[in-house]
Amino acid sequence: MSGGVVHVLGAAGFSGAQLAALVDAHPSFALGTITARADAGRRLVDVYPEYRVTTALTELDLEQIAPGDFAAVCYPHAEASELVAALLDRGVRVVDVSADHRLHDPALYPEVYGFSHPRPDLLAEAVYGLPELHRERIRDARLVANPGCFPTAALLALLPVRDRVIHVVIDAKSGVSGAGRTPTAAVHFSSATENVTPYKVLTHRHTPEIVQEFGQEVLFTPHLVSADRGLLASCYGRFVGDTPHPDDLLEDYRVFYAAHPFVEVVEGPPSMRATQRNNYAQVFVTTEPRRGLFVGFGVIDNLVKGAAGQALQNLNLMAGRPEAEGLL
Amino acid sequence: MSGGVVHVLGAAGFSGAQLAALVDAHPSFALGTITARADAGRRLVDVYPEYRVTTALTELDLEQIAPGDFAAVCYPHAEASELVAALLDRGVRVVDVSADHRLHDPALYPEVYGFSHPRPDLLAEAVYGLPELHRERIRDARLVANPGCFPTAALLALLPVRDRVIHVVIDAKSGVSGAGRTPTAAVHFSSATENVTPYKVLTHRHTPEIVQEFGQEVLFTPHLVSADRGLLASCYGRFVGDTPHPDDLLEDYRVFYAAHPFVEVVEGPPSMRATQRNNYAQVFVTTEPRRGLFVGFGVIDNLVKGAAGQALQNLNLMAGRPEAEGLL
Amino acid sequence: MSGGVVHVLGAAGFSGAQLAALVDAHPSFALGTITARADAGRRLVDVYPEYRVTTALTELDLEQIAPGDFAAVCYPHAEASELVAALLDRGVRVVDVSADHRLHDPALYPEVYGFSHPRPDLLAEAVYGLPELHRERIRDARLVANPGCFPTAALLALLPVRDRVIHVVIDAKSGVSGAGRTPTAAVHFSSATENVTPYKVLTHRHTPEIVQEFGQEVLFTPHLVSADRGLLASCYGRFVGDTPHPDDLLEDYRVFYAAHPFVEVVEGPPSMRATQRNNYAQVFVTTEPRRGLFVGFGVIDNLVKGAAGQALQNLNLMAGRPEAEGLL
Amino acid sequence: MSGGVVHVLGAAGFSGAQLAALVDAHPSFALGTITARADAGRRLVDVYPEYRVTTALTELDLEQIAPGDFAAVCYPHAEASELVAALLDRGVRVVDVSADHRLHDPALYPEVYGFSHPRPDLLAEAVYGLPELHRERIRDARLVANPGCFPTAALLALLPVRDRVIHVVIDAKSGVSGAGRTPTAAVHFSSATENVTPYKVLTHRHTPEIVQEFGQEVLFTPHLVSADRGLLASCYGRFVGDTPHPDDLLEDYRVFYAAHPFVEVVEGPPSMRATQRNNYAQVFVTTEPRRGLFVGFGVIDNLVKGAAGQALQNLNLMAGRPEAEGLL
Repeated sequence: MSGGVVHVLGAAGFSGAQLAALVDAHPSFALGTITARADAGRRLVDVYPEYRVTTALTELDLEQIAPGDFAAVCYPHAEASELVAALLDRGVRVVDVSADHRLHDPALYPEVYGFSHPRPDLLAEAVYGLPELHRERIRDARLVANPGCFPTAALLALLPVRDRVIHVVIDAKSGVSGAGRTPTAAVHFSSATENVTPYKVLTHRHTPEIVQEFGQEVLFTPHLVSADRGLLASCYGRFVGDTPHPDDLLEDYRVFYAAHPFVEVVEGPPSMRATQRNNYAQVFVTTEPRRGLFVGFGVIDNLVKGAAGQALQNLNLMAGRPEAEGLL
Repeated sequence: MSGGVVHVLGAAGFSGAQLAALVDAHPSFALGTITARADAGRRLVDVYPEYRVTTALTELDLEQIAPGDFAAVCYPHAEASELVAALLDRGVRVVDVSADHRLHDPALYPEVYGFSHPRPDLLAEAVYGLPELHRERIRDARLVANPGCFPTAALLALLPVRDRVIHVVIDAKSGVSGAGRTPTAAVHFSSATENVTPYKVLTHRHTPEIVQEFGQEVLFTPHLVSADRGLLASCYGRFVGDTPHPDDLLEDYRVFYAAHPFVEVVEGPPSMRATQRNNYAQVFVTTEPRRGLFVGFGVIDNLVKGAAGQALQNLNLMAGRPEAEGLL
Repeated sequence: MSGGVVHVLGAAGFSGAQLAALVDAHPSFALGTITARADAGRRLVDVYPEYRVTTALTELDLEQIAPGDFAAVCYPHAEASELVAALLDRGVRVVDVSADHRLHDPALYPEVYGFSHPRPDLLAEAVYGLPELHRERIRDARLVANPGCFPTAALLALLPVRDRVIHVVIDAKSGVSGAGRTPTAAVHFSSATENVTPYKVLTHRHTPEIVQEFGQEVLFTPHLVSADRGLLASCYGRFVGDTPHPDDLLEDYRVFYAAHPFVEVVEGPPSMRATQRNNYAQVFVTTEPRRGLFVGFGVIDNLVKGAAGQALQNLNLMAGRPEAEGLL
Repeated sequence: MSGGVVHVLGAAGFSGAQLAALVDAHPSFALGTITARADAGRRLVDVYPEYRVTTALTELDLEQIAPGDFAAVCYPHAEASELVAALLDRGVRVVDVSADHRLHDPALYPEVYGFSHPRPDLLAEAVYGLPELHRERIRDARLVANPGCFPTAALLALLPVRDRVIHVVIDAKSGVSGAGRTPTAAVHFSSATENVTPYKVLTHRHTPEIVQEFGQEVLFTPHLVSADRGLLASCYGRFVGDTPHPDDLLEDYRVFYAAHPFVEVVEGPPSMRATQRNNYAQVFVTTEPRRGLFVGFGVIDNLVKGAAGQALQNLNLMAGRPEAEGLL
């Protein structure tokens, strides 16, 4: 267990529970405390039988988290920043799975998330935890802001054409688990089955996060689809210079991602199936040279590469472990 | 509109909303008040876009319900009995879609439903609203107790062999809408999709209702399946006397249901598909003479023949309308 | 039955069967012959129990189709044109539900559909059967080309901004029934459940059909989603002149569709739910004035407004019946 | 790789592909040849992207299979027996995943499977590969007959009461993958979604297999449910002697399965969820002493514990490896 101890704070939600399960099965990390509020006292296996993790959920007790340990904070947005600061002060390195440290510009928080960020210094320090973009900086980071699920899929489909396409439209389809564990009318089976629904049109909070990392405005629209897990970002744009041949663009992508173990550049449109319950992303791109069009697809599991798996990928990097350890 | 006015009390739940939509489209009934608590003030179409009923939900006001009108009470169990009594006192004829008047024996209410029934006289008076069993008594009833969804499917599969089989096992599969509109962990899409779960094993409240009408003990087990609507009761038993040839038993069923417009005796195992969103039940039975076995299936839509459609079928009978009016 | 006789040729497929069921229940039309190849001899109810149409499928016999009758041809593309011509020669008015008369330019057929069209004169004569666009011409047409499912949803979302937006991207999501009745690997439940898959990227045959009626190039990408029925077209574009306020654009749409009974302009993003199994389309649009963005959604049932229901809407117009007869 | 080489013959079907993926990831076995007919020449990953197995499917060539190797035969029934015999003659130890060696009585094959078994001697020799029942004999077997999916779930729920209950009814629910990879009308998404269908009532081929191992007649009825993977057997019976208290029966089950790593005796009705994509079975039982009733549930993944996982469990035993190796 040379990797160290990983605490999962907020482990009763979908992402936190998935992360606790991944850490529990990891060959080098030890699972530390896993915390919850309403479910404190129950074993994780009693809440999520499929994970078979027998560790009990407890209320948060910072004394249980030692300097040098790692912590993943899986809190709702606006509720994580204070805890993250306290953990860093203790000498604990943190992956914040919430949205509280993803945006570098503090001015965006009141507008996008409805609260004034208490620690702009940590926004400046936090590394955006997309390893395919910031791997080297993640290795030494004290604080990694784990990306949102939609930005992960969209950015992986778009990064290699960052300076080459404009007028980018992202139409994303997410499984229902992306809406979280709290039962609501929208996630009632009778609402979600056999259905597709666009939501938060022009207002989704992941838009500024994509813009920050992609470096230009995008038109992003999420849709809820009748699947438990999976997220597909269909991306459209127009080339500003010459439009590459489809084969050449695919080759560009293969080169771009050659050193990244979790991005599979595939030969045709990917479906959600091949990345469900694993940390892979599949990416496919093509072009129509006559009209200068770009089409790209990125597909992930929203709870794995879109949340818990990516958090563990970041923890591996932070701990000096192989990037894919415990994730294959 | 010679049929009269039908008020739907508790119209924001799945059954009540379905009933309001059926009454709204009925050629002879006028839709009266439709009531709700949390949703009062909204139009039904804003809660259930698929029904396109523009009538507004209101809080209950008995003054709006005139003597001679009909009322369907779609309240949770234990909450309907008082209202039903008040309606009857006003001279309103009632279909109680709740469970509050289904059991004739008042001694069962504390044990099965956890409350002492305030009006044993109404339990004695109420007619169990399965038209295939009590059609003539329903016509003149002041109070009809609309059957539960599971008893409807099971009884239709079993009634013609009531005195001929014993050791009856009923394994039922219900769509998620049967669990009602309130969001809970069990009806979260991420719990219910790709899943089947038995529940309330040996303790489901519909058991005594089946026993009352079938006239013998049964072993009944419901399962939640990943479907919105539909209910299949698979029934098993052993013949006490000679075991009929499968063809002869099917013919017995055809004769038994010949005068009943909503029971289709079919030639092979039915699936949920053919009865979704309509008031039909499909029934198939067969036997294994060598071992004296009976196998029967009854399939319905839990919200239509299992609730709102059957309520309208009862209202048609009570109002002297054709039994199938507004239901084909 | 003053509307006349409607024959459904190719009634064993999903669209044809749905149309036969709608005609069978229509108050003014009589259902004539319904034809099939492999299923000839079976009653429609035995193939589609949910429709309860007891008419038998037969092999095609033109002698059974009298001058003055109507015929709906639900054949695969490339197989309908010859039959359509023969029917017209007999004095039968035709709705071609196949793709064989949708494109006016005969030069497109070899490229898009892989065959040289035998009757360019009929391409010139055929009226594109989107009543919201060509209602008056449909009334008197001998031959109506029933639109594809994707064009129907996309055009309804886009027509009112036809000359106002450019760079149009259409990301469409279709239920599996859109792929037809033939069992294939793609429609196997184990492939399609919990999944979303883009397909025919940049090459789908409905693209030129949209372009023809919308009057400009579009980037159209269909996706298969895990639903039986339903089709959502999410449409994105950029205004060329001033960008209207969202409320003003919604009002433009209300005005545009005021006289069209099946288009519901709604106040927020529509889901598939409200248009499943009926002939309605729901349309919602909004804008972002700062960036000049247009976002619009059109949702239909792919087999009803996207095929059979629209065919019946066209037949109503051709027969001088009320446009919505038999469709509400 | 001290475990040896495992060849998977018939690896393009659902069970064979799942088994190839499990063997490929196994720490001690080497994946040998994987064969297919129509898909020969393709890599397994191209047929099943989710498995990421890059080995190419080939046509069967017995020369590639060395004495001392292991082979799993995943052929359709009636097609495996000849190959199994040839493999055994070569000195290859075999797990037959088909049904061709499950029944010891050769007289059953013509009646149940429609062919006369060519090698009754191998029926006598084959060990029924349910490790929870025949673990010791499996270790040394040349030929293990891998159980059917329904018998696996039902037997695990029933074995500890084998001599104590009678009148056993088994109502089983299977995911669609149990019907195999071949596209048919029954597995079309549009048929299977939102549906439950009983099939092969009183005639399913797994009945004699259950009877053989359970030692008494049962009434078994399978149902197809709208899930990809998962199988639930709900079992009902009557105690012949005293009816145990529910807690005592659960304790009996815990004792019975204490040494078996893949059977989890749980505290309440299990759902499909917790055993999907793993080799566990979950079992829950209860009783109603007043009426002498037994109720038990067994749930597995039909392709893992119900097929490929169990095959690997058997291969582990045959090779002297830990029973759970490569399966946790």
